[in-house]
Amino acid sequence: MYKIVARTHRVVPRLSGLRCFSSAARPDDPLFPRKDDFPSRHIGPRDRDIVTMLDLLGYKSLDELTDNAVPKRISLNRPLEIEEPTNEYDLINRIRKVAERNQIWRSYIGMGYHNCCVPHTIMRNIFENPGWTTQYTPYQAELAQGRLEGLLNYQTMVSELTGLEVANASLLDEGTAAAEALSLCFRQNKRRKMLISDKIHPQTVSVVETRLKSLGLNMEIVNVMEADFSNHDIAGVLFQYPDTEGNVLDFSTVAENAHNNGTLVCCATDLLSLTLLRPPSEFGVDIAVGTSQRFGVPLGYGGPHAGFFACKQSLVRLMPGRMIGVTRDAAGRDAYRLALQTREQHIRRDKATSNICTAQALLANMSAMYAVYHGPQGLKDIATKVHNLTLVLKHGLTKDGNKITNDLFFDTLRIEPKIELDEVKARAQEKQINVRYFDDGAVGVSLDETTRVEDLNDLFYIFGGAQKAEDLINDPNGMRDGSIPRSEFNRTSPYLTHPVFNSHHSETRIVRYMKVLENKDLSLVHSMIPLGSCTMKLNSTTEMMPCSFKHFTDIHPFAPLDQSLGYQQLFAELERDLCAITGYDRISFQPNSGAQGEYAGLRAIQNYHEAKGDKHRDVCLIPVSAHGTNPASAQMAGMRVEAVKVRQDGSIDMEDLKMKADKFKNRLSCLMITYPSTFGVFEETVADVCEIIHKNGGQVYLDGANMNAQVGLCRPGDYGSDVSHLNLHKTFCIPHGGGGPGMGPIGVKSHLAPFLPGHPVVNPLGANSNSNYEVVSAAPFGSSAILPISWAYIKMMGPRGLRKATQVAILNANYMSKRLDSHYNTLFKGPTSKLVAHEFIIDIRDLKKTANIEAVDIAKRLMDYGFHAPTMSWPVAGTLMIEPTESEDKQELDKFCDALISIREEIKEIEEGKMDIRINPLKMAPHTQEVVINSTWERPYTREKAAFPIHFIIPETKIWPTVSRIDDIYGDKHLVCTCPPILPEYDY
Amino acid sequence: MYKIVARTHRVVPRLSGLRCFSSAARPDDPLFPRKDDFPSRHIGPRDRDIVTMLDLLGYKSLDELTDNAVPKRISLNRPLEIEEPTNEYDLINRIRKVAERNQIWRSYIGMGYHNCCVPHTIMRNIFENPGWTTQYTPYQAELAQGRLEGLLNYQTMVSELTGLEVANASLLDEGTAAAEALSLCFRQNKRRKMLISDKIHPQTVSVVETRLKSLGLNMEIVNVMEADFSNHDIAGVLFQYPDTEGNVLDFSTVAENAHNNGTLVCCATDLLSLTLLRPPSEFGVDIAVGTSQRFGVPLGYGGPHAGFFACKQSLVRLMPGRMIGVTRDAAGRDAYRLALQTREQHIRRDKATSNICTAQALLANMSAMYAVYHGPQGLKDIATKVHNLTLVLKHGLTKDGNKITNDLFFDTLRIEPKIELDEVKARAQEKQINVRYFDDGAVGVSLDETTRVEDLNDLFYIFGGAQKAEDLINDPNGMRDGSIPRSEFNRTSPYLTHPVFNSHHSETRIVRYMKVLENKDLSLVHSMIPLGSCTMKLNSTTEMMPCSFKHFTDIHPFAPLDQSLGYQQLFAELERDLCAITGYDRISFQPNSGAQGEYAGLRAIQNYHEAKGDKHRDVCLIPVSAHGTNPASAQMAGMRVEAVKVRQDGSIDMEDLKMKADKFKNRLSCLMITYPSTFGVFEETVADVCEIIHKNGGQVYLDGANMNAQVGLCRPGDYGSDVSHLNLHKTFCIPHGGGGPGMGPIGVKSHLAPFLPGHPVVNPLGANSNSNYEVVSAAPFGSSAILPISWAYIKMMGPRGLRKATQVAILNANYMSKRLDSHYNTLFKGPTSKLVAHEFIIDIRDLKKTANIEAVDIAKRLMDYGFHAPTMSWPVAGTLMIEPTESEDKQELDKFCDALISIREEIKEIEEGKMDIRINPLKMAPHTQEVVINSTWERPYTREKAAFPIHFIIPETKIWPTVSRIDDIYGDKHLVCTCPPILPEYDY
Repeated sequence: MYKIVARTHRVVPRLSGLRCFSSAARPDDPLFPRKDDFPSRHIGPRDRDIVTMLDLLGYKSLDELTDNAVPKRISLNRPLEIEEPTNEYDLINRIRKVAERNQIWRSYIGMGYHNCCVPHTIMRNIFENPGWTTQYTPYQAELAQGRLEGLLNYQTMVSELTGLEVANASLLDEGTAAAEALSLCFRQNKRRKMLISDKIHPQTVSVVETRLKSLGLNMEIVNVMEADFSNHDIAGVLFQYPDTEGNVLDFSTVAENAHNNGTLVCCATDLLSLTLLRPPSEFGVDIAVGTSQRFGVPLGYGGPHAGFFACKQSLVRLMPGRMIGVTRDAAGRDAYRLALQTREQHIRRDKATSNICTAQALLANMSAMYAVYHGPQGLKDIATKVHNLTLVLKHGLTKDGNKITNDLFFDTLRIEPKIELDEVKARAQEKQINVRYFDDGAVGVSLDETTRVEDLNDLFYIFGGAQKAEDLINDPNGMRDGSIPRSEFNRTSPYLTHPVFNSHHSETRIVRYMKVLENKDLSLVHSMIPLGSCTMKLNSTTEMMPCSFKHFTDIHPFAPLDQSLGYQQLFAELERDLCAITGYDRISFQPNSGAQGEYAGLRAIQNYHEAKGDKHRDVCLIPVSAHGTNPASAQMAGMRVEAVKVRQDGSIDMEDLKMKADKFKNRLSCLMITYPSTFGVFEETVADVCEIIHKNGGQVYLDGANMNAQVGLCRPGDYGSDVSHLNLHKTFCIPHGGGGPGMGPIGVKSHLAPFLPGHPVVNPLGANSNSNYEVVSAAPFGSSAILPISWAYIKMMGPRGLRKATQVAILNANYMSKRLDSHYNTLFKGPTSKLVAHEFIIDIRDLKKTANIEAVDIAKRLMDYGFHAPTMSWPVAGTLMIEPTESEDKQELDKFCDALISIREEIKEIEEGKMDIRINPLKMAPHTQEVVINSTWERPYTREKAAFPIHFIIPETKIWPTVSRIDDIYGDKHLVCTCPPILPEYDY
Repeated sequence: MYKIVARTHRVVPRLSGLRCFSSAARPDDPLFPRKDDFPSRHIGPRDRDIVTMLDLLGYKSLDELTDNAVPKRISLNRPLEIEEPTNEYDLINRIRKVAERNQIWRSYIGMGYHNCCVPHTIMRNIFENPGWTTQYTPYQAELAQGRLEGLLNYQTMVSELTGLEVANASLLDEGTAAAEALSLCFRQNKRRKMLISDKIHPQTVSVVETRLKSLGLNMEIVNVMEADFSNHDIAGVLFQYPDTEGNVLDFSTVAENAHNNGTLVCCATDLLSLTLLRPPSEFGVDIAVGTSQRFGVPLGYGGPHAGFFACKQSLVRLMPGRMIGVTRDAAGRDAYRLALQTREQHIRRDKATSNICTAQALLANMSAMYAVYHGPQGLKDIATKVHNLTLVLKHGLTKDGNKITNDLFFDTLRIEPKIELDEVKARAQEKQINVRYFDDGAVGVSLDETTRVEDLNDLFYIFGGAQKAEDLINDPNGMRDGSIPRSEFNRTSPYLTHPVFNSHHSETRIVRYMKVLENKDLSLVHSMIPLGSCTMKLNSTTEMMPCSFKHFTDIHPFAPLDQSLGYQQLFAELERDLCAITGYDRISFQPNSGAQGEYAGLRAIQNYHEAKGDKHRDVCLIPVSAHGTNPASAQMAGMRVEAVKVRQDGSIDMEDLKMKADKFKNRLSCLMITYPSTFGVFEETVADVCEIIHKNGGQVYLDGANMNAQVGLCRPGDYGSDVSHLNLHKTFCIPHGGGGPGMGPIGVKSHLAPFLPGHPVVNPLGANSNSNYEVVSAAPFGSSAILPISWAYIKMMGPRGLRKATQVAILNANYMSKRLDSHYNTLFKGPTSKLVAHEFIIDIRDLKKTANIEAVDIAKRLMDYGFHAPTMSWPVAGTLMIEPTESEDKQELDKFCDALISIREEIKEIEEGKMDIRINPLKMAPHTQEVVINSTWERPYTREKAAFPIHFIIPETKIWPTVSRIDDIYGDKHLVCTCPPILPEYDY
């Protein structure tokens, strides 16, 4: 008559073991039910909903569904070999212990990475705020004016500090930006030789060298002051200002010589120094690059940070990366949007300006907000303090008998110590201080915003002296030697004069400004963002928390490895897990984006061939359905792209593949393939495809963009792929941050492992590795500081959770496809299963004929329904590709389907002549408050239909676009890429 | 010819000392300028604005202004004796070190405080989100529907779990709630005797005892099972279920006996246990109280947490505290607002239902969100796990030969150990575990949500045994003994069936739900909240960050003092600083709100008189202009309130004061006074007032609500006050949290120090203090976990920063008063200075006659202008009281003034007959989207005028009220205080 408390009322089974009572107890344990298991929080649909959804599709279980969707031949028939899941609370305790294995020493290493004071209010209200972190790249500008304004501030800041007319919305890092600069030079003047100064940060040199080599360009490292351009064969010259040894030199003559001989002039520089120094534009530089890390972004053991790129107006159409421009909207008012997208690889493929269209949007926004918060005077004050401390440091070190090789400098000294170098090292160790050790026995010291007067005393001690900084600063001569303001380099040109940089200096004001921007934008905190191929899933708080841990944020990327044991453990564990998930043998974390991962992977393939003596293998086969990034990467990696046909149903044309593989057999380097295909289908032939390539001497590069359909169900490494990048910002929960940071680590089979990226300062391959490594990022392990996110996701999901997530992602896509069936046609499905994978394409091309409606009209109208559009016109023009992910629940899927169905009804009204073909809710979409709250209303539909088109869009919760439809063409014709003059009603 | 880099171009002064180069460098140091000084971030106006504003007022400097505003006689003519300022980055490092002096042991102490898993997403998106924390109490309901919905969820949760019809929106803690319950009994049946069970938490008994004593009521601690009610003199009986020793007993007979004899029945209970146990309502309880801390709120060394209070419908109009009710808006739709406010002290003064109208809104919202996140099944699962583990614990301890005195229990056992108590203690020490030690040698152990199976083994060890929990749980008899579900106490009635508790269980869903609620509400992240007497200033991120530190959040309030050294240091330092600021000698942190501070302060005065043999002194003089809380507190403290007249200009009528002081000379206990006065004026006579009271044997209680006008300029302790409470949530930066938590510590002169609150478990006065202490809060140090906020504020501002903040607060108020001069009349100013203090009252009473416009119309119309209303009709009916604080900058003040002036123009149109007297933008305000985005519009003004009435209110940034004007009367007539059935379009 008595019953044990249980969630279900069935008889309690006799328990067979102990495991379920450990901290990894099964969530369905009836005696000790847990409510802290993470998969049930990450996966949207409740189990009862899953049953309903499976019912609609005619399946009895998730396993039955995915057994049908995934080809048997490649199916993984065992659980993933990763740990049992950890709950959210244990996870935090565990990662905290990992983090605390990192030792935080004071860093004076510099080399492009500086300690800085991250304003706490920016950290909390942007970096730790899902309203900012879960935004997508602002392709749908009408619901993205907030971050677009932030990025425009960034461009304005970079442009004005460097003195150049235009800047982009950031690149991955300084090294990448420098490589892009020289690539631009080549594109502009088609010359194939570059000169690089011998006083540039070593990681910049390495990244540039790798890139130029793969493009077949030559470079020479020289003393640029003595460079000879007269042969008219130099495409571009790159130098650094202040240089890697800290010197501020006058490059006017170099620039003049270069220009006189048709050579473009590129300069790596430091934004903080430019608040005091004459900007590079004033000695004729064409392109300036660098990093904005020290503007309020944590070191994070190398990233993520934003690299910047500025150039003269004349080069703007060759400029790589994303650029925000001002245009007008349908109401004729100023509005922001991504400008000149036609340069990008999703349009131009292997002819693209660059394959690095990824920005570091979140970090660029943080840096821009740092400038907004401090203003020009505040930034100058910070720079002044840093510079004056460096003057005092030089004065003291010199008094103590050290030799300082710098005459004029900003924050960095190169010191030839009076005492033995070993003694310097021992004293630095004693004080827990890191400095830079040059190969020739000199020592580099870079000061920064966090340095105090009293810190100088420790530095004097390290160099064997006993000066007192407190005395030196009262010495009137103490701050003369090397002073910028006393020199001809003193900056006189103004910067950051726009009101946005001169208004928000109290915390109250900056908080409100950040909130105004945040609230203009749609993110995952509002509704689903069903972008096909982008996998906008939950970025949970628990995953994000460790990114703010001091022991992760405050460590320099070139700190000795024995100080970063926590990171090393994190990398090792994540590598093990990712290998278990993908079937690969090794992972490199260096690539900072998917595109960079592709590049690194293709370079590994190329170098593998070369090592085997197959240098001639340079053909890369790519199905025509591939993402534009693939051919762009192949081109960048030095390959020749050959297209492979696809059939009507979207699958690879096996005959054509065989034919091409055979035709190029002797020159075949690799095939690039996406799986499931970019059409959202599990092709049954994938293993055959890999076999054909291997038989013809090629390697298989599998684009990991669609890993979210595979985790726990099948593994690329098992069915024939040799290398993949993994978009950690898609499948593995790093948030998109409004267009970066992302992460694109690559997994490889063991034969490719020796060809993974290395690094000139801290080699991730180990100190004894092959010295012919290539380098794709400035930091050895890429954007280390966001890796805890993916680590935490895998640890909390466990093998069953990950598999279920994939199954539900597939269920969600198929459920939506089914629900939309009688309204929109799903373009591609598996040939026998009649199932899609984790995403699907609906065809709306006919509507152009029947109602003059295009994809863009539906996309904009969806905004009125509270949703972000699916991926538009890719991979098939005139279609929409929908990817719901596992995190969206049935109710949200239903709402999105209801919205699309309702829009189809609106289109029907046009088709039936009941609604005007030009003035209708779709063509006029999106509708702003300004439009509907207006005494004048002369449209053939009501204000209510415009703004509240369906029952669930109600005033209390409506998300409003803040501008009407963007005019892209106008903007590209009238390019404005810095902050426009403010309108009188705008509130600064 | 050379110049040193400097912010200004004047000659650099020879530096006289070193202090300015330390980390506390002066922000204006030209050589080493700092941008991390906090006062410039906290204080809104820039220095150039201050000059402009002073100009308008005719002063040359802030000092000149405040020298005129503050009476010379009381002026503090030296800097505050507090530390030089610390910058934001050093502050965090410093407080982290303080925090880490706390030791976090596993706590099984229980006694109303339990470890729990705070869902990270709720912590980050509510507790750490200024969008939630900086809201004010939702008096302006149209811009507060989000938190009102959250609090309604809370009421529904409490009501359904306890089984009682109504619940309030929370009280300060369990002890206070219990005291309120018995006070209600007295109000209901006017009997003066209470029976208290001898099995109640000791701190609850103490708080109740203190309160009843001051009300002149009697209480008796008894075994309630044997209580005799037949004398018909018992007002109420209070017992606990499960009781403090863990037992679950049947109180049906007690309740029946009580009811048969006209006694009300009160029950302290535990929400988590009620997911398994029959609710107290089922055995006839009239009132249930407790704490909701274990529903997702950190321990925080005692608070803040939300206490709950539920009762039968018949008692609702006697219920203390705030209550959210459903009413309708002007459009006839459901809307939420504070119900039955007429019970509150701001209306009823000393006749109020209670003086504790403060809720713990932020924490109640967190707890409600915890229930929303877990749902009824999730909560039951958590309770089941806790209970089953407790069953296993009993089984094992019994097997080991310990005696467990509990038959039926939920999570707590009372253990009579087999081994020596000292050995138990030693073993507990060894394992770093805290348990409860009863006076009789028994040991209490309470399990909670965070307990794991493996933790039980440590407990077995402590009690000298060697059972293995992993074995016991497989023993079919292991979980029988004491099982609730096997007993007649098994709960069968449903709870939390509303969709809101059954929908948001994935993280994606709960994040969106929290964001929907947040975005309905206006907070400091949007615009100024100029509430007179509420001091809505910046709550900076740096101040808030330590509140999330694990070493502050995860410690039990009854942990031994040697484990809380970090907190003790924090208290000591904050006490020292607050004494320096106020001129008092000691501080008690126990009071959790201003009202509770008043109560504690008045009790200290009463006990002081009693100790001197002046027991008869019970008259409390209060100016009629005082806040209603003053007379309510006096009444609660057992005093007789006598009013003192004020003159036409708002100042105390000195003649009347002298007369009353003389008249009651022999019975005079004290005077309660607010300074600057509630009319916003520095009265010149304040020192005389204090002198008069002292001469007549009385004490002076100075209400600290207006300390923001005094800090650094004058000190209550200097000019004659004996005791004050300090609203840390006003002057000292604790955010208002949407209506709590607050903090009301009291400062006293040394003669009152022995009469500060004590505590029965951990005595803040020291173990050897007078044992006759009184107790006002359940936790010894009140809401300890938010004290780092005030500590950080003072440390970062330093003596000059604090003084300047006060000066700018006064400047801002006078600037606004001046700007509004020709449009609205400022009611009271200093008699000679013609200045107001930090707030001012504008008179709009005439507008009733000229345009039928009242304060409420202007308040609601201000919402259309994007602002929260000033304080309405207090302290003078028909007026608005404006307090800008120092954090608002000139631009924001100007915008608010512009809005008020524009509204005055709108009123003029009515006065001039150009606008309808009933249908006009003021009477119809606020305007929702639903109203203006409507095909039907028949008003004599435009939609644009309704929604965008001034140039700076633009679509992109407009804050919308989500309901039309609230109908309060309808709501109070048709009282609904739980979640209403959902509308079909509402999105759950």
